[in-house]
Parts: sequence; structure tokens; C-alpha cells
Amino acid sequence: MKVKITEVGPRDGLQNEKRPVSTEIKSEYIQRLVRAGLKNIEATSFVKKDAIPQLADAAELSALLDLKGNVRYSALTPNLKGYEAARSAGYPEVAVFTAASESFTKKNINRTIAESIEGFQEIFKLAKQDGIQVRGYVSTVIDCPYEGKIDPKKVLEVSKVLLDLGAYEISLGETIGTGVPAEVEKLLELLLKEIPADKLAGHFHDTYGMAIANVEKAFSMGLRSFDSSSGGLGGCPYAKGAAGNLATDDLVYFLEKSGIKTGVDPGLLWEASAFMENALARELQSRTYLATKKKRES
Amino acid sequence: MKVKITEVGPRDGLQNEKRPVSTEIKSEYIQRLVRAGLKNIEATSFVKKDAIPQLADAAELSALLDLKGNVRYSALTPNLKGYEAARSAGYPEVAVFTAASESFTKKNINRTIAESIEGFQEIFKLAKQDGIQVRGYVSTVIDCPYEGKIDPKKVLEVSKVLLDLGAYEISLGETIGTGVPAEVEKLLELLLKEIPADKLAGHFHDTYGMAIANVEKAFSMGLRSFDSSSGGLGGCPYAKGAAGNLATDDLVYFLEKSGIKTGVDPGLLWEASAFMENALARELQSRTYLATKKKRES
Repeated sequence: MKVKITEVGPRDGLQNEKRPVSTEIKSEYIQRLVRAGLKNIEATSFVKKDAIPQLADAAELSALLDLKGNVRYSALTPNLKGYEAARSAGYPEVAVFTAASESFTKKNINRTIAESIEGFQEIFKLAKQDGIQVRGYVSTVIDCPYEGKIDPKKVLEVSKVLLDLGAYEISLGETIGTGVPAEVEKLLELLLKEIPADKLAGHFHDTYGMAIANVEKAFSMGLRSFDSSSGGLGGCPYAKGAAGNLATDDLVYFLEKSGIKTGVDPGLLWEASAFMENALARELQSRTYLATKKKRES
Repeated sequence: MKVKITEVGPRDGLQNEKRPVSTEIKSEYIQRLVRAGLKNIEATSFVKKDAIPQLADAAELSALLDLKGNVRYSALTPNLKGYEAARSAGYPEVAVFTAASESFTKKNINRTIAESIEGFQEIFKLAKQDGIQVRGYVSTVIDCPYEGKIDPKKVLEVSKVLLDLGAYEISLGETIGTGVPAEVEKLLELLLKEIPADKLAGHFHDTYGMAIANVEKAFSMGLRSFDSSSGGLGGCPYAKGAAGNLATDDLVYFLEKSGIKTGVDPGLLWEASAFMENALARELQSRTYLATKKKRES
């Protein structure tokens, strides 16, 4: 049984950390993730430099990565300019980002969902010519911080449009971490009627401690691709200081203890997380990371 | 659908907190738990005063509780002397404690499992005469810190002995929080062949972030009784400083969001946890507690 883990710590994680991190530290962090055995790493986002200061060094960081090697790196590309920068940098994969909630998309990028997807058309077209794979993120697949419960039909609709445009995989973003397995089940029951499980990834947040339970549910329904950030880097913009992304440490623990091989070395992963804990000068929140740390200290 | 939550913060939680807490604070904490809607509360343990200094005020605390009221209070009674003290205090329920691992029982109470159960015979006999209900804890139902993986057959065997002696319910203690849903499933598959689901409770720890996923699995297999501690009070004696008991806050969040009524008011529960966070002067670790706190602060 094979599982794909997309490590999003360097992008989704660091984007939501207060303390800025130097390009050198990011590069060292990514090298450590690679050494730990992670094979899919979302390294950065090509946005306007002033939009997300934490990721303003996208080009500089990318120049330090072995983008043609065995590890599959990707970068978030919110628009055509971003796509062109990612292509110049040499990324084999980019990711585009929309949501299943109109209010969220409006507040987040000041567009309707349709407008956001319209903006991706050219990226998909060029990516096909350039031989670059495109991953589609759909945010707020269960709840939206502005409009509450999201209709699974909306998630299906947006996902299908992105797949039709050429996305090889849809990452289902449970953006605010409020979803529970029963809701994941309801969502996937609908999606899996029209989308094969191997085109879907689960992207859960652990804000309320539900992430692993949601992974377990999605896994039991056939999903084999999950996003996570080492140490649980990042946070929740809607509850600042709370837990953020599902921690890679917890995900790897869960999978390996369940008898599912990940190819990730938990000890080396712990070292990568510890390196960032030190760089960020704050205690990380991954349960597995912390338990391991406390054991090592005692 | 009805779910029973046994709040173990005052006993299992405080037993594993470094900072001692006054009897007055414990009493106020328990009143707050009652106000939040918790109906089953494990208040303390009647052990030798020097064995667990945090719970040395068992008699004094018990005198402050309305043990004949609507809330079902229980106390841990490791031996006959403890049972007699709990009976004098007026508890309608006591709990006895053993494990599925010989090494754990040996290290923990310096007895074999058989010897520990032998010691309970008199408690069960008296309790029947006294009209006091007995709950049986079986620890290390999945992993043991000393001998590793535990054979589910051993859990079945010990559980059946306790039920035969008269325990009305067995609380299955996943003591070190290393278990995952696949292991819970395997264990319950065996137990449920011989024990009805309504005689079993799940007692999970969140050391590695697996507790809610384990609850979800146990719930899906028919269990309707779970132990938890408000705020995630307590810790793991085998990884000091790591997360401890499943947090009542996370459990209530999970159940309510899944459409299962608990009768617990999340806001008042949050207040109870916040009260203890203040008393213990350390940040609690429940994800739901923290997310709520951060939201209130912002």
C-alpha cells in the first residue's frame, strides 16, 4: 500500500508563522526534510513580494533546490506571473488555489470562484505545453469562516472544473480544521461518485484536534494522498496561535503504526522539525513531535 | 443517541500534574464541571496519603461534594481500605484498577494481574452488599511501556474476570497513547464477541495525537462510553510534559459536531478548563480549548 505525503511546511507552514525565516534556514530545513525521506515538497509560493513577506524569497530559495532531482518540488502560483516565475525557476509542478466558498474566495483573493478559475485557464494551457503538472487546491471544503457549512455539491463542482482543465490531483482543503469524520465521509461519498480516489488528496488542519480522525476516514474511503507540515508548522489565521496544519510527524506516526509504509524516517523527521522549532523560537504543537522531544529530554 | 462521558480530570488529570492543587480549588473545579453539564465525574482516589500526594485530600474533598445528588461521582479504590474510605465518604460508585500487562502491573503496584484481582474480591463482595457500583479499569490494552504490544486475548481475559466479579463497566485504558484505530478495531473485534458494547468504555490518551481517531473507531463499533479530562489535564508518565488524557473539550467538540448530543455546554466547559489552567499556571494542551482561547483573545 503506497501513500503520498505532500510536505507543505515550507510554504503553508511558514506562510502562517509570525517570525520571518531566512532563505538559508529554509533551504537547510528542506534539505532535512529530503533526508528524512519526504518525496513531495511544496517549497514556496510565487506571489507579489509584499503580499506574503514570509515567502518573498521564492526565487532565491528555489535557486538553492535540486528541482530536477528525485524529490518532486512544487510551488504555489496564484496567477500567470507566478506561473512564469515558477517555470523559470524550473519547477516540475505548480499548484493553483481556489475555494468552495464564494465569501472565502472574495475575502481571500477578491474574486468570485469562477473568476479565480478563469484566471487559471492560461496557466493550465501553458503548463500542458511546458510539461509541468498542476495540482488544484480547493479550500473550505467543509466549513467556511465566513459562511459556515459548505455544500459538498459546490466542492464537487469546483473540483471537476479543475480536473477538466488538467489538474492531476485535487487537494481538498479543510481550511479551518472544524470538520469531523462524519462530514468528511459525507463529502467524499459525493465526490467519489464522479472522481476517482487517486485524484483526491486530503489537506486537514488540526485546529480542533480532528485531523488524524479525518485522515483515517478519508483513508478508509480510498484516499492515499495527504498534505501535512512537519512539526505542525503554521497556524490557523482564524484562531491565531491555535494549531495549524496536520503535523507530518503525527501523520507518519499514524500511518506507520497502522502498518502503512511511508518511506519517512521518524527520527530524521523529528530532527527537521526540531531545527525549525529552534529557528522559529516557539514550541511546535505536533503531539508526536512533543512526545518524542519529552522522551529524548528525560 | 446517548453518550456517557466520564470526566477524569480531577483524578487521572490532577494525579499527573506536578503542581499541587488545594482542596478548595478542586472543589470549585468540580462545581464548574457540574455546571458545564458533566454527569459522571471521577473525583479522587483513596490511596495512602504519601503514595499520591496530589490526591491526599480525598476525604476532605469528598466531604465538599454532593455525593447523593444527580451527578454520579466515583472514586478510585486500590484496596479494601480505600474502598471503606470511599464508602464512608458516601460514594455511589468506586473503580478498581488493573492492567492487561504483567510487567505494567508488577512495576505499577508490585503484584501480578491475578494477585491484583484477588485483592478486589472483597471489594466486589462488599460493594454488592452496600449497593455501590464498581467500575473496572484495565490499563495497557494496546501497548505497554515495558513489554510493548499486548495480546487482545489478555485484555479479554482480564475484562471478563472483572465483569464476572460484578463490574458494571470496563474502562479500556490505552495508557500510553500509542494505539491507532486499526489496533483499537482489532481489540474490539475480539472483545465484542464475548462482551456487549454497553459494558465497555474507551479511555484514550492523546500523547501521539491519536485519541479522537480512536474514539471515532470505537464509536463506530458501538461503544458509547468514553473517559476524558477537561482541557486535557494530566500528562503521560512515560513522556513527561507530553499530552495526557484525551481532552473532554476535544471529545465534546467531536461528538457535538458529529450530531451526537452530550448535554455538555462547551462554553461552560471551557470556563472550567480555563479555571484549572490558571490554577496550574501552565498552558493546557487540548486543541479545542486552545483554539477557543485564541479566538476569545483575538
